[in-house]
Amino acid sequence: MDVVQVGLVGLGTVGTGVAKILIEQAAWLERRAGIPIRLKRIAELDLDRDRGIRLHGIALSRDAKDILEDPDIQITVELIGGIEPARTILLEAMARKKHVVTANKALLASNGPELFEASSDADVEIGFEASVAGGIPIVRCLREGLAGDRILSLTGIINGTSNYILSTMTDQRRSFSESLKQAQSLGYAEADPRLDIEGHDTAHKLVILVALAYGIHLKPQEVFTEGIREITEMDIAYAGELGYRIKLLAIAKNVRGILEARVHPTIIPAHHPLASVGQAFNAIYVNGESVGPVMFYGKGAGMMPTAGAVTSDLIDIGRNLRLGIRRRMPPLGFYGDIIEKAAIKPMEALCTKHYIRFPVVDRPGVLSKISGVLGNHGISIHSVIQHGRQNAGPVHIIMLTHEAREASLQQAMAEINRMEEVLGKSLFIRIEDALDDL
Amino acid sequence: MDVVQVGLVGLGTVGTGVAKILIEQAAWLERRAGIPIRLKRIAELDLDRDRGIRLHGIALSRDAKDILEDPDIQITVELIGGIEPARTILLEAMARKKHVVTANKALLASNGPELFEASSDADVEIGFEASVAGGIPIVRCLREGLAGDRILSLTGIINGTSNYILSTMTDQRRSFSESLKQAQSLGYAEADPRLDIEGHDTAHKLVILVALAYGIHLKPQEVFTEGIREITEMDIAYAGELGYRIKLLAIAKNVRGILEARVHPTIIPAHHPLASVGQAFNAIYVNGESVGPVMFYGKGAGMMPTAGAVTSDLIDIGRNLRLGIRRRMPPLGFYGDIIEKAAIKPMEALCTKHYIRFPVVDRPGVLSKISGVLGNHGISIHSVIQHGRQNAGPVHIIMLTHEAREASLQQAMAEINRMEEVLGKSLFIRIEDALDDL
Repeated sequence: MDVVQVGLVGLGTVGTGVAKILIEQAAWLERRAGIPIRLKRIAELDLDRDRGIRLHGIALSRDAKDILEDPDIQITVELIGGIEPARTILLEAMARKKHVVTANKALLASNGPELFEASSDADVEIGFEASVAGGIPIVRCLREGLAGDRILSLTGIINGTSNYILSTMTDQRRSFSESLKQAQSLGYAEADPRLDIEGHDTAHKLVILVALAYGIHLKPQEVFTEGIREITEMDIAYAGELGYRIKLLAIAKNVRGILEARVHPTIIPAHHPLASVGQAFNAIYVNGESVGPVMFYGKGAGMMPTAGAVTSDLIDIGRNLRLGIRRRMPPLGFYGDIIEKAAIKPMEALCTKHYIRFPVVDRPGVLSKISGVLGNHGISIHSVIQHGRQNAGPVHIIMLTHEAREASLQQAMAEINRMEEVLGKSLFIRIEDALDDL
Repeated sequence: MDVVQVGLVGLGTVGTGVAKILIEQAAWLERRAGIPIRLKRIAELDLDRDRGIRLHGIALSRDAKDILEDPDIQITVELIGGIEPARTILLEAMARKKHVVTANKALLASNGPELFEASSDADVEIGFEASVAGGIPIVRCLREGLAGDRILSLTGIINGTSNYILSTMTDQRRSFSESLKQAQSLGYAEADPRLDIEGHDTAHKLVILVALAYGIHLKPQEVFTEGIREITEMDIAYAGELGYRIKLLAIAKNVRGILEARVHPTIIPAHHPLASVGQAFNAIYVNGESVGPVMFYGKGAGMMPTAGAVTSDLIDIGRNLRLGIRRRMPPLGFYGDIIEKAAIKPMEALCTKHYIRFPVVDRPGVLSKISGVLGNHGISIHSVIQHGRQNAGPVHIIMLTHEAREASLQQAMAEINRMEEVLGKSLFIRIEDALDDL
């Protein structure tokens, strides 16, 4: 083989970045892959928009079929996102013995096993480095760099939008809605931000990370998912006062064969490396049995970081094609049919410390009543903050608890929220202050 | 092929860790590599010491020859360190068509091209993930994860000993010598710490990183190298007061084809991700044209992190052997004979800002005289700190300069150090406050 021919489906932001790299860095890519990588065809519905790149010599069409049916094309890159028609295009490409590269985290989270099986049946590669944490090469780090290690836990800031909002609330002392607006005006958040701020995008990526770390396929709905919408600037300020930061974390832990996989706002110590991951940056903190803690930090989204990740998959497949190798390893880097069995820990059985904020009426006896309910549920209080009333409305009692079972806490919270002295919904945030101790 | 047989030369700290993983995690490694990886032989001079692992069924000997001459052994792991006999063992193993894995940074820095050529001649792989930054998979990150990107700059904290000392000086306000003693008592520093604190170990690793990032082989002596011995707790305190931290950095930059490669104590902003890399941790901050800034953080040394890195090389080679592939890619991940040409920037031509501390007699006119000399050499002052005298001895004038050429600064410093008002050697530390702007 003397050249690798690529077909690109989708010329949106990332697709344009990939085209730019393939066109402008052709000599560099050849030096890296050992074989020229040529962008032969692009399929895109909107072919009229000027994207600032010269697509000279590349066959353009509105139909992905033109790529699928071209026998010269060895790699199909899918960058249209969403479930359909992305899924059908990838399956069809693999059925036609084309290798595929995708950045489609939603599709991989929902249909990963189907896609990986199709790649096995067709004996082709499926590259998905760009699907998690954009420019951070976390797929290769877990599948290759840390392949010899047992991953005890993995904790990630893997949604740039949420991290941007929480960082803005922290650094600029803005409200959630102001910070969201700022994120939208800067292009860090979509007009409909739900996928990001409700944690679903993070959960999709966590499904992929769990598969890479443990060889276990979760369904997205098996990941407990809670977003950041209820976090107020007050909680950020109190957490700061206590030496903590609030981050939306994806957490996976494997504690003696019991798997935790959850996404929720989390309070971590201000000195933890994840605490200083600001703006729209991503970071993944991995705790390996041998390696100890390792952290990977970088841009989780954007045209060029994500396009760079797609390119690394193209080089990887190019290096294989040059030698005539197909499927050097399974997509997740695990051999054998038997997937390691892991029971998933039900959320109710989770034990963590908690930050709780109770908005209450300013009246004697309230604190005693609340702590009584907590005590009845076996929840022990570590510390309490209550500042004097600063304006009309409720005063806020802040408590940090010792480790308590989620089920007990939920029951206690429901009971407390029914108290007439409680003037709004109380908020609790789980604390992870020992990410390295497992 | 149905099993990969490994011979291990050197059962020191890291060797023991590798043996431990190969013995205790055999099932996991087979699941990862797709083929059993069996430790068949160990060669070690000191076979009497109890290392707390059961070496049942492994052939032990005092002579590496027993490994080299065993035709069943496909991979030789060299973990004895130093130039000889490590070099001869690796060359001999490759000549006998054995793949090799090494953690030997000093050897790779001095003899990298010879070893890489031997691996090419013999058509075998040479794995060296463990040679830089221990448990951080930086070799794979540069050679595979970021393969599609142009590396603009790379900045590393890659010597745990020096970082431990500087962190202790910063966090516990101790002197250099107290911090060194503490590092030694905790096993972070050797009895003879020169290789670490004088920057040579860092320079060795930088040579390897430059090779991986740019495909350029430097000689260790081509890397400007300055250690941390002259840094005092006073400099740490002043830097802190100004919002900076002092770190021993390995810096490589490729600015329009001109390569900088240098190791020296460096002042960086306290908010930079590298500034919070504490203790004996390592981190490598890479600035890629597409990906932007990426940082990799973890333990740079120690038994198990380094052993984990060696294991990842064994899995990688195992995955290839399973398929009957030899040399999937060249050791640095660059194809072609032509190494990209880069002129090395002479140190004198370097332009940076500087922190300078002048120990002077407490007398009127000194500041004016010093700033006069700086002015004569075209060095412009950004700010000055001079605190009142606190005890006997000199007062210290601290200056931050604007960007100045190294040559001019050196000349000015020599002139100032000859002034009778200057009571000791003035110290300057280069500032890098724009690691992302290139």
